[in-house]
Amino acid sequence: MTTAFLGPPGTFSEEAALLRATSENLVAFSSFPALVSAVETGLADEAVLPIENSIEGAVSTTLDLLIHETALRIAGELAVPVRHFLITAPGVRLADVRVVTSHPQPFGQCRRFLDRCLPGVEQVAALSTAGAVQEVASSDDGHRAAIGTARAAELYGGTILAHDIQDVHTNVTRFVVLASEDAPPTGDDKTSLAFRVRENVPGALHDILAEFAVETLQMTKIESRPSKGWLGDYVFLIDFEGHRRDERVARVLDRIRERCSMLKIFGSYPRFPLDSLRASIDPGQPID
Amino acid sequence: MTTAFLGPPGTFSEEAALLRATSENLVAFSSFPALVSAVETGLADEAVLPIENSIEGAVSTTLDLLIHETALRIAGELAVPVRHFLITAPGVRLADVRVVTSHPQPFGQCRRFLDRCLPGVEQVAALSTAGAVQEVASSDDGHRAAIGTARAAELYGGTILAHDIQDVHTNVTRFVVLASEDAPPTGDDKTSLAFRVRENVPGALHDILAEFAVETLQMTKIESRPSKGWLGDYVFLIDFEGHRRDERVARVLDRIRERCSMLKIFGSYPRFPLDSLRASIDPGQPID
Repeated sequence: MTTAFLGPPGTFSEEAALLRATSENLVAFSSFPALVSAVETGLADEAVLPIENSIEGAVSTTLDLLIHETALRIAGELAVPVRHFLITAPGVRLADVRVVTSHPQPFGQCRRFLDRCLPGVEQVAALSTAGAVQEVASSDDGHRAAIGTARAAELYGGTILAHDIQDVHTNVTRFVVLASEDAPPTGDDKTSLAFRVRENVPGALHDILAEFAVETLQMTKIESRPSKGWLGDYVFLIDFEGHRRDERVARVLDRIRERCSMLKIFGSYPRFPLDSLRASIDPGQPID
Repeated sequence: MTTAFLGPPGTFSEEAALLRATSENLVAFSSFPALVSAVETGLADEAVLPIENSIEGAVSTTLDLLIHETALRIAGELAVPVRHFLITAPGVRLADVRVVTSHPQPFGQCRRFLDRCLPGVEQVAALSTAGAVQEVASSDDGHRAAIGTARAAELYGGTILAHDIQDVHTNVTRFVVLASEDAPPTGDDKTSLAFRVRENVPGALHDILAEFAVETLQMTKIESRPSKGWLGDYVFLIDFEGHRRDERVARVLDRIRERCSMLKIFGSYPRFPLDSLRASIDPGQPID
């Protein structure tokens, strides 16, 4: 069983993939379409792709691959907290640091720590956090630090000077696991699908959502993507609780099929235990 | 009356702004937040921001500014077809071109033309299409071409070698006009709003959409964005036909207010005549 992920090793995608497989069964690819092709052609048994971040929102490349480009199914979901670490070569102290390097996104996500603990230090953009850590960990410059994952520090021999330097501690990325088949029912499942409504009939979308409400199926997500035809033609994406083989879910799917000009069921899979992840990140502090 | 847009001059944003004002009344800013601040502080009377593209989808920066950061209203909408032009310095012929430069996005959008008419020609990335046209138009190298707008060719003195070199002719970007007040009713209006539902009650979203269906108000768009709290908490964004001062719309807004933990009405504004734009781009060819 091999699991494909977006490389290089030491990224959040690898952290997610490590929730599915041990590191010797992971294989890195360099793009989202490559991950899909890897599973379609048997180079890997499954692939882990980010689909949503709690601050940035949907990962539209992944949604568009699912809608337009592959018959692969969603066989699982994973959630990984976005935790950033300040990493140097061994022996470098905070006072020595003159340059911090990372992907541009972590700079925005660690602004408070950088302002407070590394004021005025030059920030240099890198192509990936893992690349930045690798470069810094093997540098003998003595004045460089990177922002990256704990896993990258471990892989490339860096020293962690500070942990959890991100401004927002509840920032989480959700991943989907794509495979040739989805997952059997476990009693605590979710189903994801995409559809287009027939023409622009007033209330057409509402009529479809009403079918879920009638069966008291809780929708956990609704998203829209352009159909890539004309402006204003959308594909809707819905996640809801239940397995496609559950009786109530099967009834809804039967009823909405005739109301849709396109219906693609991405699959049913066990729900990730987000509540326990939240308790571990944010003990005793409800966000709302 | 001054209209702010995302510079430099010669971009699609300037084309959209020119539908609102003549060029002497336009003022360029360098970021989306700067456009918002310009109107909030009186540096400009209104600002034009892209909100949606028919292939790429929502412009999340604009949505998040509207949800979280400004009390400005949407006072209008505009749609501009994405038309790309091959531009050189005067006197350069197609056979002379050895290098094409542009923003990375147009290279992807003009792949067919480039493969057919400029096979094997080196592609060099630039920060903006307008910057690429400016550089090429003033170059005396004799072997360079840029991909950009007709407006950029005019502004920077370039020569158009080929027009409409984009692969997809129905690619359109929609812009919103932000101002301190929204627009009075015209009889053919749209309203945009954002809301959060109270807790995760099954069917809570459906109950809200049902209120629109009861009054047969046609929803033209539904979108979700993360609330930036915990994963799975969303802000929903809806566009629908009608003005907020119309009786039916006012009734729906009253009824949904109590079901929402947040309700923000972005404004009502005249509907852009998309059908006539479509007829001009794509005569006699329905897309669906």
